[in-house]
Amino acid sequence: MERTFAKTISRAKSSAVREILKLTQNSKVLSFAGGLPAEDSFPAEAIREAYERVFARGAGALQYGLTEGVLALREWLTEFLRAKGVETSPDKLLVTTGSQQAIDLAFRVMIDPGDYVLVERPTYLAALQALSLADGRVAEVDSDAEGMLPDDLEAKLREFRPKIVYVTPTFSNPGGKLWSDERRRALAELARRYGALVIEDDPYGDIRFDPNLRVTTLYETDAALGGEGNALYLGSFSKTVAPALRTGFAAGPEDVIRMMEKAKQASDLHSSGVDQLALYELVTQWDLAGHIRSISAMYRERMERLTAHMTGAPWELLRWNRPQGGMFLWATLPESWVAVDLLKLAVEEGAAFVPGEPFYAGEPARNTLRINFTHTPPALVPEGLERLARAIQRYAQG
Amino acid sequence: MERTFAKTISRAKSSAVREILKLTQNSKVLSFAGGLPAEDSFPAEAIREAYERVFARGAGALQYGLTEGVLALREWLTEFLRAKGVETSPDKLLVTTGSQQAIDLAFRVMIDPGDYVLVERPTYLAALQALSLADGRVAEVDSDAEGMLPDDLEAKLREFRPKIVYVTPTFSNPGGKLWSDERRRALAELARRYGALVIEDDPYGDIRFDPNLRVTTLYETDAALGGEGNALYLGSFSKTVAPALRTGFAAGPEDVIRMMEKAKQASDLHSSGVDQLALYELVTQWDLAGHIRSISAMYRERMERLTAHMTGAPWELLRWNRPQGGMFLWATLPESWVAVDLLKLAVEEGAAFVPGEPFYAGEPARNTLRINFTHTPPALVPEGLERLARAIQRYAQG
Repeated sequence: MERTFAKTISRAKSSAVREILKLTQNSKVLSFAGGLPAEDSFPAEAIREAYERVFARGAGALQYGLTEGVLALREWLTEFLRAKGVETSPDKLLVTTGSQQAIDLAFRVMIDPGDYVLVERPTYLAALQALSLADGRVAEVDSDAEGMLPDDLEAKLREFRPKIVYVTPTFSNPGGKLWSDERRRALAELARRYGALVIEDDPYGDIRFDPNLRVTTLYETDAALGGEGNALYLGSFSKTVAPALRTGFAAGPEDVIRMMEKAKQASDLHSSGVDQLALYELVTQWDLAGHIRSISAMYRERMERLTAHMTGAPWELLRWNRPQGGMFLWATLPESWVAVDLLKLAVEEGAAFVPGEPFYAGEPARNTLRINFTHTPPALVPEGLERLARAIQRYAQG
Repeated sequence: MERTFAKTISRAKSSAVREILKLTQNSKVLSFAGGLPAEDSFPAEAIREAYERVFARGAGALQYGLTEGVLALREWLTEFLRAKGVETSPDKLLVTTGSQQAIDLAFRVMIDPGDYVLVERPTYLAALQALSLADGRVAEVDSDAEGMLPDDLEAKLREFRPKIVYVTPTFSNPGGKLWSDERRRALAELARRYGALVIEDDPYGDIRFDPNLRVTTLYETDAALGGEGNALYLGSFSKTVAPALRTGFAAGPEDVIRMMEKAKQASDLHSSGVDQLALYELVTQWDLAGHIRSISAMYRERMERLTAHMTGAPWELLRWNRPQGGMFLWATLPESWVAVDLLKLAVEEGAAFVPGEPFYAGEPARNTLRINFTHTPPALVPEGLERLARAIQRYAQG
C-alpha cells in the first residue's frame, strides 16, 4: 500500500554521512566517528550494586511511577545542581529518557509549526532533528570560539522573533567549545529582551580537563538577572555514569516543566523507574564527584595522546582548538576541501570521523570535521591516525 | 514572563477527573481508579536475577545501543509474537518505552495537523492525548460489546478519510471488551479498502481468564487478507512482567517501523538498554508463559471476588459485562446519573473509581465508570465496595 507519512518525518532526509558511516560498523575500520564514552570508564560494579539495592526495596520499585520522575532522585538532583549554580526544586525538575528527550519535549511544548529556534553555528545534529519533527524552523547565529556573536544574535532575534535560543555552551558537540562569561551574559540578556526561552543543553559540562576551572552556567547567568527565570537547563548521566540507563533531566521555569510533563505523559507515561531508582542508589552511595574527576582526567589524557600524534605532515594542513573538556575535537581542513570526500578515502584506508556538514542548519562549512577522542582504545589510536593521515595525503595529492 | 506555548499542548485541558483523583493520593481512600497491575504479581526475584545476568555481561551492556532496540530481544520477540499469530521479523520491530511510546510515535509519523484517526467509543484516554499532541483530529465509531459497528465504521471512513483506525480489540481499557472475529475481519477489510492504517493496541491481550480461549489478533486477521500488511501491532510487558521496566514494542509494515525508528531517534535515541537486556534475560531463562497463566488466574479470581460483592441493593442500579480478561470492569449507572458527581460522593466516603467521561472523544456517556480489579488488595475490597455502595445510595437519595 502506498502510504503518506506526516510531512515532518517524510522531510527528514537520510543522511549521506550516516550511509557512509554504516559501512564502518562491525568492520575493521578504526572509527573516531561515534559520540560514545569509553566503556572502561563505566562504573560497572557500582552500578550492579545499585540495581541490587533497588531490588532489595521490594516489588514497589517495579510499579508504575510519576511522569515527572522518582521524587528521591529529583530531591537529590536539586542538591547536585545547586553545586553547579543551578538553583531549582523537585517540582521544577523533570526526569527524561536521556537529555535527548528533554530537547524533544521542550520543542514539542514551545514550537508551533513555523516557529523559529536560533542555534549556534555549528550545533548539535539531533536537536535539529527534534526541531524538524516539531515542524519548527531554524536560523543560525554566527559564532566564534567564545560563543554566539551578540550583534548577530540580536539581529536574528529581531528578524526571526524565535521562541527559543538553543545552545550547548560548555564543551559543545560538535565544536568542543567553551563559551565565555561575557557571551553567556549577552545571550541571557538579549533572550529576555526579545522574549525567547534559553535552552542550555549541558550533557558534557562535567567533563572538564582542568578541575579548578569554574564554569558559570547560562542558567545561573540568567537567574542573576533577577525576576522569573528564563533558562531551561538540560543534563544527562549518559557521559558521567553510563548511557544505557538513559537518564537525563530538565530544570527550569515551572510553567515550562509542567507543560513538558504533560507532553511526556502522552509520550511514554514515564522513564524507566528501575533505572531512576538505580541511579539514585548509585549517586547517593558512591563517589560520583570522584568518578567525574577520574573520567575527566582519563579523557584529558586521551585527548592529549591523540593530538600528540597529530603533528608534522600531513597534519599541519588541519587546524583545531585544544578542547578544555567534553568528548570532541573540531578540526578545519584547507578552505577548498570537502570533508565528506575525505571521509570516503578514510574509510578506504580503514578509519572514520564525522564530517561537519550535518551539524550546520544553514550553509555548511564543508571543510570541517569532528573527531571523538574518548572511545577508541588508546592502543589503537596511533594506527587509526596513520590511516587518517594516509587519507589526507591522498586527498592533498588530488 | 508571559509565555506562549504550542497550541497543541495549551489545548490539553487539565482534567476535572484527574483533579478529583489527585485528592485520593496518599490518603486513606480505597481506590479502584488506578490502571495498576498487582504489585504482588511482579516476579521480583526473577527480575533481580535477570539484571544480575546483564551486569555479568560486562560494561558493553551499559553503552549506547541501537534506536530500534536490542537485537537479541527483537529476535526473541519474533518467536513470542509468532505464537500469537503475529508473523514478523526483527527488522519489522521497534522496541519502545512502554506501548504508550509506540502509540505516540505512530501518530507522529502518520498524522499531519488536521488528519483524522478513528477510535472506538469509548477508547483509551492516553491515545487521545497523544493524538492531540500530534494535532490530529478524532472521530468516534459507534461500538457495541463486539467492537465497532461495520456500517458506522464504513460511513466514518468515507466521511473522514482517516489515516489511522486505532483500536484495543482485546480486553480494552476502559471497556474490558473482546471484539468478535467478525468485527475484526470487517475492520481489517474496510481499513484496507479506504487506505487507513490499523493500529491494534494490545497491552492486555495476554491476560485472559479462560486459558483455552483463542483470540485471533487483528494483525493476523489483516495478514490473512494477503499482500502487504496494513496493521501495526503494539504490545507491552508492563502488565505481564512489571511496568517500571517500561518495555513495549511495535510490529508492523517495514516502512512504518522505519519512520517510527527515525522519529524515536530524535525523541530519545533509544529506550533503556539495561532494561531491554534484563527483559531478554528474564524471558529466555524463566517461565513467562507460566507466569502469564498464574497472573491471569489471580486477576480472574480478583474480578470474581469483586463482582461477588456487587450484588443486592444498591448494586442492581448498575449494569456491567463480566470481562473475559484484562484489568477493568466497565459499568453503567442509570441513564440520568453523572458518574463525576458520584465520584465526589465516593471520595467523601473514602473510595474512588474513574468516571467514563474522559474516555470519550465525542459526546460522553456521563453515566459510565471504570473499576480496576487488579490492584486493590483483596482484603480491602469489601470495605472499599461498602464505601462505594454508600455513595451510590446517597446519590440515589438525591
